[in-house]
Parts: sequence; structure tokens; C-alpha cells
Amino acid sequence: MRRPFVVIGLGRFGGSVTQELIRQGAEVLAIDRDDAKIEAFREHVTSSVVADATDEKVLKELGVHEYTHVIVAIGNDIEASILTTLLLSELGVPDISVKAQNDYHARVLTKIGADRVLHPERDMGTRLAHNLMSKNIIDYAELSGQLSVMEMTVDEHKCGGTIGALELRRKYHCAVVAVCRNGTFFSSPPMTEVIKKGDILVVLGLTKDVYQLEQAMAHKKEG
Amino acid sequence: MRRPFVVIGLGRFGGSVTQELIRQGAEVLAIDRDDAKIEAFREHVTSSVVADATDEKVLKELGVHEYTHVIVAIGNDIEASILTTLLLSELGVPDISVKAQNDYHARVLTKIGADRVLHPERDMGTRLAHNLMSKNIIDYAELSGQLSVMEMTVDEHKCGGTIGALELRRKYHCAVVAVCRNGTFFSSPPMTEVIKKGDILVVLGLTKDVYQLEQAMAHKKEG
Amino acid sequence: MRRPFVVIGLGRFGGSVTQELIRQGAEVLAIDRDDAKIEAFREHVTSSVVADATDEKVLKELGVHEYTHVIVAIGNDIEASILTTLLLSELGVPDISVKAQNDYHARVLTKIGADRVLHPERDMGTRLAHNLMSKNIIDYAELSGQLSVMEMTVDEHKCGGTIGALELRRKYHCAVVAVCRNGTFFSSPPMTEVIKKGDILVVLGLTKDVYQLEQAMAHKKEG
Amino acid sequence: MRRPFVVIGLGRFGGSVTQELIRQGAEVLAIDRDDAKIEAFREHVTSSVVADATDEKVLKELGVHEYTHVIVAIGNDIEASILTTLLLSELGVPDISVKAQNDYHARVLTKIGADRVLHPERDMGTRLAHNLMSKNIIDYAELSGQLSVMEMTVDEHKCGGTIGALELRRKYHCAVVAVCRNGTFFSSPPMTEVIKKGDILVVLGLTKDVYQLEQAMAHKKEG
Amino acid sequence: MRRPFVVIGLGRFGGSVTQELIRQGAEVLAIDRDDAKIEAFREHVTSSVVADATDEKVLKELGVHEYTHVIVAIGNDIEASILTTLLLSELGVPDISVKAQNDYHARVLTKIGADRVLHPERDMGTRLAHNLMSKNIIDYAELSGQLSVMEMTVDEHKCGGTIGALELRRKYHCAVVAVCRNGTFFSSPPMTEVIKKGDILVVLGLTKDVYQLEQAMAHKKEG
Amino acid sequence: MRRPFVVIGLGRFGGSVTQELIRQGAEVLAIDRDDAKIEAFREHVTSSVVADATDEKVLKELGVHEYTHVIVAIGNDIEASILTTLLLSELGVPDISVKAQNDYHARVLTKIGADRVLHPERDMGTRLAHNLMSKNIIDYAELSGQLSVMEMTVDEHKCGGTIGALELRRKYHCAVVAVCRNGTFFSSPPMTEVIKKGDILVVLGLTKDVYQLEQAMAHKKEG
Amino acid sequence: MRRPFVVIGLGRFGGSVTQELIRQGAEVLAIDRDDAKIEAFREHVTSSVVADATDEKVLKELGVHEYTHVIVAIGNDIEASILTTLLLSELGVPDISVKAQNDYHARVLTKIGADRVLHPERDMGTRLAHNLMSKNIIDYAELSGQLSVMEMTVDEHKCGGTIGALELRRKYHCAVVAVCRNGTFFSSPPMTEVIKKGDILVVLGLTKDVYQLEQAMAHKKEG
Amino acid sequence: MRRPFVVIGLGRFGGSVTQELIRQGAEVLAIDRDDAKIEAFREHVTSSVVADATDEKVLKELGVHEYTHVIVAIGNDIEASILTTLLLSELGVPDISVKAQNDYHARVLTKIGADRVLHPERDMGTRLAHNLMSKNIIDYAELSGQLSVMEMTVDEHKCGGTIGALELRRKYHCAVVAVCRNGTFFSSPPMTEVIKKGDILVVLGLTKDVYQLEQAMAHKKEG
Repeated sequence: MRRPFVVIGLGRFGGSVTQELIRQGAEVLAIDRDDAKIEAFREHVTSSVVADATDEKVLKELGVHEYTHVIVAIGNDIEASILTTLLLSELGVPDISVKAQNDYHARVLTKIGADRVLHPERDMGTRLAHNLMSKNIIDYAELSGQLSVMEMTVDEHKCGGTIGALELRRKYHCAVVAVCRNGTFFSSPPMTEVIKKGDILVVLGLTKDVYQLEQAMAHKKEG
Repeated sequence: MRRPFVVIGLGRFGGSVTQELIRQGAEVLAIDRDDAKIEAFREHVTSSVVADATDEKVLKELGVHEYTHVIVAIGNDIEASILTTLLLSELGVPDISVKAQNDYHARVLTKIGADRVLHPERDMGTRLAHNLMSKNIIDYAELSGQLSVMEMTVDEHKCGGTIGALELRRKYHCAVVAVCRNGTFFSSPPMTEVIKKGDILVVLGLTKDVYQLEQAMAHKKEG
Repeated sequence: MRRPFVVIGLGRFGGSVTQELIRQGAEVLAIDRDDAKIEAFREHVTSSVVADATDEKVLKELGVHEYTHVIVAIGNDIEASILTTLLLSELGVPDISVKAQNDYHARVLTKIGADRVLHPERDMGTRLAHNLMSKNIIDYAELSGQLSVMEMTVDEHKCGGTIGALELRRKYHCAVVAVCRNGTFFSSPPMTEVIKKGDILVVLGLTKDVYQLEQAMAHKKEG
Repeated sequence: MRRPFVVIGLGRFGGSVTQELIRQGAEVLAIDRDDAKIEAFREHVTSSVVADATDEKVLKELGVHEYTHVIVAIGNDIEASILTTLLLSELGVPDISVKAQNDYHARVLTKIGADRVLHPERDMGTRLAHNLMSKNIIDYAELSGQLSVMEMTVDEHKCGGTIGALELRRKYHCAVVAVCRNGTFFSSPPMTEVIKKGDILVVLGLTKDVYQLEQAMAHKKEG
Repeated sequence: MRRPFVVIGLGRFGGSVTQELIRQGAEVLAIDRDDAKIEAFREHVTSSVVADATDEKVLKELGVHEYTHVIVAIGNDIEASILTTLLLSELGVPDISVKAQNDYHARVLTKIGADRVLHPERDMGTRLAHNLMSKNIIDYAELSGQLSVMEMTVDEHKCGGTIGALELRRKYHCAVVAVCRNGTFFSSPPMTEVIKKGDILVVLGLTKDVYQLEQAMAHKKEG
Repeated sequence: MRRPFVVIGLGRFGGSVTQELIRQGAEVLAIDRDDAKIEAFREHVTSSVVADATDEKVLKELGVHEYTHVIVAIGNDIEASILTTLLLSELGVPDISVKAQNDYHARVLTKIGADRVLHPERDMGTRLAHNLMSKNIIDYAELSGQLSVMEMTVDEHKCGGTIGALELRRKYHCAVVAVCRNGTFFSSPPMTEVIKKGDILVVLGLTKDVYQLEQAMAHKKEG
Repeated sequence: MRRPFVVIGLGRFGGSVTQELIRQGAEVLAIDRDDAKIEAFREHVTSSVVADATDEKVLKELGVHEYTHVIVAIGNDIEASILTTLLLSELGVPDISVKAQNDYHARVLTKIGADRVLHPERDMGTRLAHNLMSKNIIDYAELSGQLSVMEMTVDEHKCGGTIGALELRRKYHCAVVAVCRNGTFFSSPPMTEVIKKGDILVVLGLTKDVYQLEQAMAHKKEG
Repeated sequence: MRRPFVVIGLGRFGGSVTQELIRQGAEVLAIDRDDAKIEAFREHVTSSVVADATDEKVLKELGVHEYTHVIVAIGNDIEASILTTLLLSELGVPDISVKAQNDYHARVLTKIGADRVLHPERDMGTRLAHNLMSKNIIDYAELSGQLSVMEMTVDEHKCGGTIGALELRRKYHCAVVAVCRNGTFFSSPPMTEVIKKGDILVVLGLTKDVYQLEQAMAHKKEG
């Protein structure tokens, strides 16, 4: 039976992946070149090794090819990231996730066998930009498919009106799928639900539609 | 009238914030110490300056205190990040977002006046861990409040059953707020909706409840 | 019972604090990252540790939070100085003294909890400037409140005149509080005391008044 | 006629000397190798030059030998500090003040002609140690001769007693030369003056006597 | 019509390719990041540009995609070599030759689209080893197919014998295709040709067969 | 009896020489300053030493002067390469092969006693240029004497014609010494041999003559 | 007509050669890579050039081959020193003097064509050792042939005796060729000359004989 | 009884002093910070220590103050050279020789107590310049007093003439104190001695007079 997780590189990103996996009860083999980083995780992970993941022999000795998921979280060393990914791909690891530094890096990774390429700084930057576009936008996240979700408030003069009156569905093809009120929430609110002051509406839609809605909210803002 | 956005630091994170803000039509003043980075953005942003944002006089001359939102996206130089944030806070900027390198950095930033502290690598790491926990979990995102949203599929033998039969509400206090099917979606599906093969269910719940659901899905996985 | 002194950083400043505290019989825990510096102090201080004071766990293990006074004398590493001060403040150390590199550093330190911020180079520079302003000014020191003290001589043609004739009180609101003559001194001299050649007058006044007196002495000098 | 001041090196120490001299209306020629530092002072000093003070020809061209006081405030470059001092001494500058890094440096400087050697970090360290020895000690400063001055409060239970009752003169040969009360002060208080809560007593004495007094106050403290 | 040659990187390898191409009358566009290297070739190549070949925009502006052959001779910067090769491949360059630093590098290059991967140091090392194996082996070269060619002499006691007597064909399936004598040569010598002292025989065979022959010659050598 | 091979420097070139010598069964003493490189070869070579080959005493202790062939494959350190070659020459090593970085290096090496100077990057560059000159040129190699060998195909319309019809001998003084067909070869083909599609002709000639032939093929190509 | 002097490298050694040559009225072409060094000599030398003397083309353009004497005074860069010497030798410079760093460097220089190899530090070290061996040895110098010259005093109790009584000629084959007395000297003193207190005798002899004399003086010294 | 020699610093200069002292049978204590250098001398010197000579405690523990002669041969670290010299002077070492980097360094050394300051590169440079001035000058050396010695030949047409005919004494106040002929020498030659071809004359004179003679010889040369 294939064993679950290897994380290569315990910097901010790899360390965070590792911590969350452990918190959820997963078994993790952690690999880093840096003694100190391995030391910091030793008590928590199933096993940890100070090793150079760009060395084919090392990867084989660690049995990395018997794991299902390998996360390559090597920081700034693009060459090491590429080489490690190549080796994992040639060893037949079924699911390889790799953090990329930029678009070119991402393209090389995809060509040599990465299954999932991640851009933490770029994606968080995008998300922050969405959140800042209007004071009514509380948070925004793109999901893996074509959907995006947005938390929003409404301007004070619209409080007391109904969800239906916002015409989100008609104008933007977006749905209010939940309302957060007083620290709890209820899903699938009726169109006749009256919006109270402090309500946070959870809006769902195709990414392009949510984007139209954001635009409308942002432009109104400066008026 | 206050003017909207200043981005200080045009690395991967700051560059991404800037690009998205511009794409949404916002006015952005971009500041970086590095000539080449400013050059790369010059055509796109409203104005751009090669300048040292740790110099109080420079910030004043640029009129940074007249902007509503300032994003401090200074890369690895923690000292510069702290100093710039202090200056912005003392200049009275109403909304300061800062990227932190680690928890200590975040604590200092909060004490000296940052309104929003961001951890791109840490958060993306957490999100990846969630996604990898079960092959049925497609994506996962924490929203700014207490809610989380998750995209999931169901095991093949449950296809043909109804949403109600999953008992997500009863067992985990989570709601299926939308179904993604054949590239489109419909929100607020009825409990009697029959799940088809390939359906992606969008589930909403309090973060702690979604977490319980994930756990259940993950542990089942290795069985 | 709280224990008295911790000095973090044994450079010129921290080393000097430590030596004087020891000379006065105080108990001092000395911390430095540098083995050689700890070695140089090992015989003299109560206890000494090679440790990284930016590591929260280390500070706790050393029981730094049980001490009354902590002096942060970290040299040029502003980031380490800030982080250590933050940790000490969060650990509840009652009295934290920190050496600052510049005004910005000082402002951050104050915001995150430093009780006393010191500027050795700046203050000594100021003091030297005062001393050099007139050949009659022997020494000058600002005290912590609003008072300054100055040692001065008088021009030769005034020797033989009385202290009262100098009119320091009337013109500058300053008092001659002592006279140093032949290697000894007497305090509170009467206004009728005749100034002898070689006398050093100790003058006390509000800092702004002593400053006026200095100015007068300095400008006369070039005449 | 000799002209007054040259400051070589505009770091924290030299910059502070320069600022205070200017504030007092003196004429200052500022020299530094670093363009940026000279730029920062250009408006304030009488003249300023980007130059290498270890170059004999440069010093002559600047006419440094016609100045009365030269302050060598070169930072960490001991070799440059020594060489510059040698040149100034050979050029016949009448009064040379030099900042030393350590005792060896100080000894070399004295041998090659420095008139005054300064140790900002060491002296501030000593002063801080004095201040921290007892919570009643507000501030402490050694003057250039044999005298020291100390600001102190008295324990609460002694408030209401007279200055004479403290027996400072009898026990420690120290005199209370002034009392600071409510933001003002009066000098030469009578022995019968009653000490009020919040009073700061300014005490003068030979350095060794003030030291005895401090010791007594410090040791009482932990009881 | 496609234009012929681009050489990226003018170090020892790229410079040598460029010189030979020019000597043969070809048109070459030479690209290097280093001003001095471009300068050295400017008179000889058709056109030369100081440019960064890892910048997609630059490659497009130079019209690199319109050339038939691109040689990537980037020295030690594996990351730049990979990135440039990726860009060339995506731009549709029909024939891409790349110098590799090692086997891993070569594997990545092949995966991302290199048509020909070169190992100068490795191949020359191999060739030297062949040459040194026997004093009778004058030179050795592997050709691109399955053939190798070897120049050899024969031991003195065999001079005077015929080519046929060497039995190279029977024992090693190798053919003597030419004889070099007195500075000229004649091809396809008859089996009855008598070998003279100083003759160099040019032997052709499948690489594995030539190897057998070399082995036999080498082992005899130490006898 | 003299012993055969010493390789100094185990980089790409020296490592390749060593591997090929071992593969052919030779005894090799490998020397490198770098522990890791020696480690990688330890199992394969007869003996291996971590040593500095620029130290005369070391070379003597290793008995390097008793070997017949020494290969100096020191990478970029020209000074070390020169010094080692000098020492080997003075120790009387009969056959010294040295890798050169450039022409000047080569000239110094020759003057101080190198028997064979190698230029891997330069030679491979030349060879690649030859190969790229015409799509009919498959490979090209200069042999150590005045001969060169070339593998070529013929344009499709000439297939079906005879070797004699190519007139290589008359026009270029070159001989077709073998034909490679269907993965095997036969040497000394008759002039009447009909060329089939896919045939590779092995052509031999004086280097200058082969060069003329290449030129003709190349220039025809663009027509 | 050949022109006289080129000095390459204007460090301590080359600068000193240059200064002395100029002082004696010679024409000197000075070459250094460093702008500042050339600047310092510009007024004094006949011509001076900022240039890289390891570049063959540069040397030719400067016409270095038309000069009689070239002094290679390149500091620590052994590679540059060797290359420059090689080029000068190949250009046919008749007299090449080169400063060596060590014996190996000297051997390479000799092999590639240096006419005179100099070791300033080594030779001055030897001379100092001679001078220190006895307090009677004032100075010692080896001349270029087999002769050495020594300045010596005699022990006080021998003052008043004659030069002949020292028996330097009989015991050590050395001659007293001059006596230095009261700031002047007379040569070829007679054997009967009485030695006065303060006299310095100038002794000449074959180097090995002067060495014997030194030894005798040194060993007596510790008695 | 004082012990003789300490050499601090075993570079080219200090190593040369040490070797010559040992060769003459002296006892030497060798000190260097560098393990490898001490190792190279360990067998030859009386004792050797890896130590930092800028550490006062170290010098005392080694008993350096009990030695008569200390040679400070510290290479490029002017600060260490100055500090060590200061310490030796304060420890009362009777004879301190120090190598200087330049004139400023020399002046500081003299002020802080060096008895003898040496300039190897400068002095050798001067000597070489003298030697090169005329092809008749074989060697030249300044002695420690006011005398210089020169070895010279005479132009061929003067061979056969007498020493007296050269008029060296009349014109230049120089004396021919010896003649070197056929590998031996005789001192104090008579004025009537006929100069033979190949004779080397040893000329002695005041430095300024020898200089005049050199000048005359040099200027004649170009005629």
C-alpha cells in the first residue's frame, strides 16, 4: 500500500503544509537540507531526515517513490526544485505538488511532470486586491473550478431591503448562498429575507460573474 | 478626497496585488527601490517611483499619507518592513496591509499599527494540506469570518443518492450551497437533489465544522 | 522575589553596563550569541549563557521573565533588537532598557514596550559639543529631568571678583552650587565668595537656562 | 585667526556633535567619505566636503590645520581613525578629540597626539548601570573633574523629614545642592528644608563619595 | 525563409561554435549578457546583441523563432540554460542544441524540448582515455551513428608484414580504410599492402568492435 | 616498472577520463582536493586520495613520478593547473596531459612541459559547427594527424546514383571509405555502388579537403 | 632605437621602481589596471596608461615590445604575472624583471622567459636577520656576484687597537675597505689604523667568508 | 638573561627572517595565527605557537617581554601591526623591528615605539631601479649609514686603462675598494691597477656621491 505524504523543504510554505497535515492526523516524512529545520519538526512528524533531495540515490534510499503525495516546497533554488521534481517524476510518484517562483518556473515544472504547481505569493496578492476593491467586500476566494466565493456587506441605506432587491442573480448571475448574522449563519436564504445591519452575505458565482459584481461595487465606491 | 492604493514592493506578492488592482481598474501608486521592477510596471500603473520607503521624507513628498490603502509588500527585509509600517502608521494612513515573514514579525507589525497582516506562504500551505487530505476534497478556503467553504466530490457508490442522504447538516452542521455540474452551477439545491457522477458539491460551514467533515473524509480514505 | 539584572549583548555598551553593575556588587545574568564574549565575562558575572535572545523558548528557559531589569544591548542588528524587546515585553519584564541605533529604531522600541531607550553615541556627541563651545566650559551634563549641570572657569580678569558679580542668577536663572578649589570642593558658596584663579564653578539650572549661559560664553570667546 | 570646528565622520556620534555645534551657532566644516551623509548636512553646516580624511593632501587643501578643534568621529575603521589623528597631530591642530573603539585604540590615539579620547558606548553603559542600581536613583553623571552629580528621590517613609535628617553630608560627604519640585528647582536648600513626596534631590560630591552613597542605596533596595 | 544560426552564450564552447560557423561562411546572430564578449565578436558575426536570453520578450524582439538552428551555450547557469531552452522550444525553433553540465541537466533539457544535448568535457575525457590506453593508439573518435574510427600504429616487429596479417577484420570486424604515410594517405588499401614503419592505419568499425580491438592493444601494452 | 595513470581533478572532464579508463580495465590513481568527489569514485578506482596537487611534497609522497601518464584535469584554477604541471615536469613524469582554459594557458603549459594540451569546449564547439553546416552532414571529427572523417547523407535526387557519380575524389580528393546501411556497414565500397535512400557515407580526407567538401555542401543548402 | 623602461603594476614595489627611475631622469611608461594608481603617477612619468597587461593586443598597441626593460610588478595575482611575462617574452622584450610571490612562481617565470626574478620580502627578511645577529653588525648586504659587504662596530675594549689586530683577513679572508668616522669616511685604511670609539668599519669579502665572520660575532654575543 | 628572537607572522617576510636566523643557529620563537604556517616551521624553530599577537594576555603568557628582539612581520593587517607594536613597546621589549605597508604606517609605528621600520617592497624597488640604470651597473646597495656600495664594469674601450684614469675619486668622491676578477677579489687596489675585461669594480662612497656617479653612467648610456 502506498504511504501518504512527503514534504521536501521546511520553509514557511513547506512548514505550513506539514503542520496542517500533522494537525489533521496524517503521516508525514519531512526532508530538508538544514539540520535546524528538521530539528524543529522532529517531535511532530512521523519521520524526518536531513538530506539533499536533489540526489537520486538519497530519494531512493528514503523510499520516496512509495509515497502517494510529494510536496516540493524548496524555496528560492529553482535549479534544485526542477531537479527534484524531475527525479520524483522519473521515480513514478503519482502526485507531485511543487511551489513555483514564477511563470517560467511553473512551465518547466509542468513539462517535467509536476501535477500541481502552486504560487502562494501571487495568489494571496490577487486575493488581497479583491478584498481591498470595495469596503463592502469582506473576503474573496477563487475555488479550484470555475467558481468564486465572496463575503460582502451592503451599504447602510440598503439595510432593511430584501436580498431579492439587490438583484444579484439577475444582474450578475450570482447567488447569495448564506447569511452570516450575529456570529452564526444560515444557508440558502429566501429572496424575501430582509438584510439587517451587520449581515455578511456569502455570494457564489462563476469567477467571471463575481468579478463583474466586484467591479460594480468598486466603482460605486468612489462616487 | 482620499486616493485609493499604494503598493510598496513589487516582488511576487506586491506585483500580484498591483496587477489585480489594475485589472479591476483601480489607481495604483507603485514604489520599489529597484529600478528594473518599476520599469516593468511603468506602463500599467497610474504612477510609479523608484524610492526608498523607509525614508520618512520620501513618503511625505510622495503624499503617501493621502492614500486610503497602503500595501507593504517588502520581501525579506524585516527591518525595512517594520520601519515603513511605523512611518505609515504615524502619517495616519487609514488602512495598512503588510506581508509578514513569521509570527514574531506579525506581532511587531500589529503593535506598531498594521491593520491587516498577511502570510501568503503559510496560508497557501494550509490550503494545500486541506486539499490533499482526501481525494474527494477538490479545494478548500477559509473566509475572513468564521466560515469556510469546501468543494468536494462523493465516492462513486454514493452517486445516485440524494444530497440529504449525505447527512452533512445533521452530522457536521454544514450546508451544500451549490452544485457544480457540467461546467455550470445551481445554488441552494434541494435535499432531494440526486447527486450525479462528476458533481462537485460546494459546502459551507463554520470553519470548525468543515474541519470535522474533512477529518471524516480523510480517515475514511485510507480504509 | 524578582531577581535583578539581565544584560543581553556584551559589546562595548553591554559590556560596560555589566562591568559597572558587577563592580557595584549586583548579580548579573549575561547573554550573548558569541562564545568568546561570554568567555571573557564568565569569571565575573553571576551566570553567563551563550544563547540567541531572539528565541522565545530560550528566554523562557533562562527564566528571563523573573528578572526586574533587562538591558538589551544588541549592537547593529536592529531586527534582533526589536524582536528581543517584543519578547521581553510580552513576557512581562517590568523594566526594559534598550540601546537604539537611530530615532526610527527608538520609536519602534517605545511602541513595542521598551521602558528606556538609550542613544550612547548621540548623547556623547551632544555633550562633547557643549564642552567644546567655550574654553571656560570644563564639562556639561544633562540630567534626566529638566536640569543640566555645567563646570566652568571664569576669564582671568574676573578672578578676584565675587560669584555674585557674575550675575548668573539674574541673567540666566542659574545657580553656582559648588566651587572646586585645589582638588576639594565646598557646596552652596555665598554670593560674596571671591573667585580665585583655577576655581571651577559648578553651575546648575534648567537645561534651557544653562544653554543660554553657554551661548553667551561661547559668543564672547571669538571676540 | 584660528577658525573653530571640523568634524570628520558624520555617523551617529559625529552627526550628533555637528548638530549640537550648529544649534549653538558654531561654524562647522563637516567631512565624510559618504556622499549621502554630506548631503544630509549640507544645508546646516558652514561647509561640507566629501573627502577622504586619511589623505594628507586632502587635509591640507581643506586647510584643516587652521582650525582650532577637530573631532575625529570615524566609525569602525580603526586604521583610518589612527591615520587621520596622526596627520592632524603632525599638521599642528591644537585640540584633537577622537572617538575610540576600545582601550587599545585609545592608547594608540594618545601616543600619536589625541588630546581627548571619547568612549560613548562605554560611558553610557556605566551611567545606565548607576541609574539602575536603586529605584531612588534618577540619574547620575560623572563630571570631568573629581565630582559627580546624582539625582535621587527618597523612600516614601522619609518624606516629611528634613534634608538634614538624611545625614548625607556626615555619612557620605555629599551635599544636596538643589531640590527639584513641581517642575522647577531651588538651589542651596537649607538643612531644615522638609522633603516632600515627588521631590528630586540633586546631590553633589567627590565621585568616590557619591559612589559610597549609591552603594548604600542599592544594597538597601533588595531588603 | 528561415535564417540559419543563433548562438546564445559566447564562452569557450559558444565562442568556438561561432568562430567555426563564421569561418565556414555562415550567418550567425550572437547573443551574450556580457558586453565585453559581444565586443570581441562584433566584427566577425553577422549581428550581435547584448541581451538576456532568459527574457521571452527579448527573444521575440530578436526574432529568434525565425532561425533554424539555435545553440544554447550558456555556461554554468543551469537555471538560465533550462529557461532559455524552454522558451526556444515554445517559440517553435526547429533545431535546438544545448550544452549540458551533467546528466540531470541533460534529462531536463530533453524533456523540455532540446533536440541535441552536448557534453564537451565528458566526451573529450572519454576520447583522451581511449588515446592513452595504448601507445599504438594515435587518436580515437566516436561518430554519431554506431561507428567509431581509430588511428593506430603497429608494433615495430609487425612492420614489414601485411595489413591482412593483422587479422583485424577476422578478429574484430574492423576494417583498415586508409593508410597515412609520409604526410599523405591512400584509402581502401589492399589486404596485401605491406605496413611500413611510421604508417598510421585508419581503422573503422562498429563502436563495440573498435572497443574490443582497443582492449586487446591496451592489455598487450603492459606485457 | 612504471605504473600507468594518475588523474588530478575529478570534475566533468577528469571524471570522464577516469570512468573510461576504469571501464577499459586500467589502474588509476585519482587525486582531488574535494572529499566528496573522491568519495564518489572510491569504489571504482585503484586508489584515491584527497590531496592538494600543488604541493610538491604531496606529489612525491604519492609517488606520482613513478607513473607513466598523468592527466591534469584541474578546473578553473589556472594557477594551480600551471603549478601542478611544472611540478610533474620537474619530477620527470614522461607523459603529461593538461586541460587548458584558453590559448594563453595552453602556451604556458607547453613551455613548462605539458606533452598534450586539451581544449574540450573549444573542440566540441568546432565539431558541432561542422555538424550543423549542412543537413547532409551527420557528424564530423578531426583526427590527430592531418585527416578528418565525415559522415554524410546525399540529397534524395542523388539516391539511385553511384558513389562514383558524386565525384568526391576528383573534386575534393576525399574517399568514401565505408557505407552504413540498415544498421550495419561495409568498408571500401566500389565506385559503382548504388547509393540507397538512408545510406550514410563515411568520407575520409585531408582536413583541408574535407573542409572544401563541407563548404560545397553548406553553400548548396541555402540555394 | 629601443626605448628604456616599462613598469607594469604600481603597487609598493612597482611604484618604488618607478619613483627611483624617474628621480634618476629615466623615461618610464607606467601601466596599471587601477585608475587611481595611474592618476597618482601621471605628472611624474613620461606616459601612463590604465590598461590590462594580460591582454596581448593592449601590449602591442602600447608598443611594449619596443622597450628595452620591462618590470612586471604585478602584486598578488600570480596568474596575471605569469601571463604577462609569457606575452613579453613572446614579443621579444630583451630584459624582463618580474617580482615573484614564492619559489614555485619563480620557477615558472624562469621557464617562460623572465630574465630576473625578484623576491623583495624574502631578501629583506634575510638582510634583517643578518643585521640582528650581533649588536656590532650595523648593516649587511649581499651584492649580485659572490661578494657581500658588512658594516660593523667593534666591542669597546677593542677600541684603541689597530685594524690589523682584528685579524679579519687572516681568520675570515675579509678586508676592511673603509672606515666611517664622524659622518665622513676614508677608504682603504692601513692595517695600522687605530680604531676609535664610534668607528664603523666597512668589511668586504666573499659571501661565505662574511658569513663566517658574522657567525663568530653572533656567537660571542651571548657569552 | 634576555632571550633572543621572536618573529610574529610567518608570511614571506617573517618566514625569511626566521629561516635565516635559524640557519645562523639562533633560537627563535615563532608566532602566527595560522595553524598551517606554524606547522610548516615546527621542526625548525625552537618553539612555535598558534596565537593572536594582538591579545595582550597572550603576549604575556608567552613571555614575549623577556626577549631581546621581536620582529613584527604581520602582513596586510595594519591595525594588528600597530596594536602588536604598541603592546610590545608597553611590555618593554628592547628592540622592535616592524614591517610597514606605507609611509603613514611607518610614522605611526615610530611614534608608538618601533625601533626599526622596514619597507621590503619599496627598498627592493629602489635597488632594482639603480641596477637597471646603466648596463655597467651590476648591483647597488645602500648601507645603513650614509654610505652606498656599487658593483660596476667599465665600457670596453676603457679596459686596459688604470683605475686612476677613471677619476672616480676626483669627480665623484668615490673609491674603488675592491676588484672582482675571475671569481675571486682583491681589496684596496692601487690607482695604477690596469682594468681587465670582465673586471667588476666595487665602488664605495657617500650615497649622494654614488648617486652622481650613477647618473653620469646612465646618461652616457643613451648617447
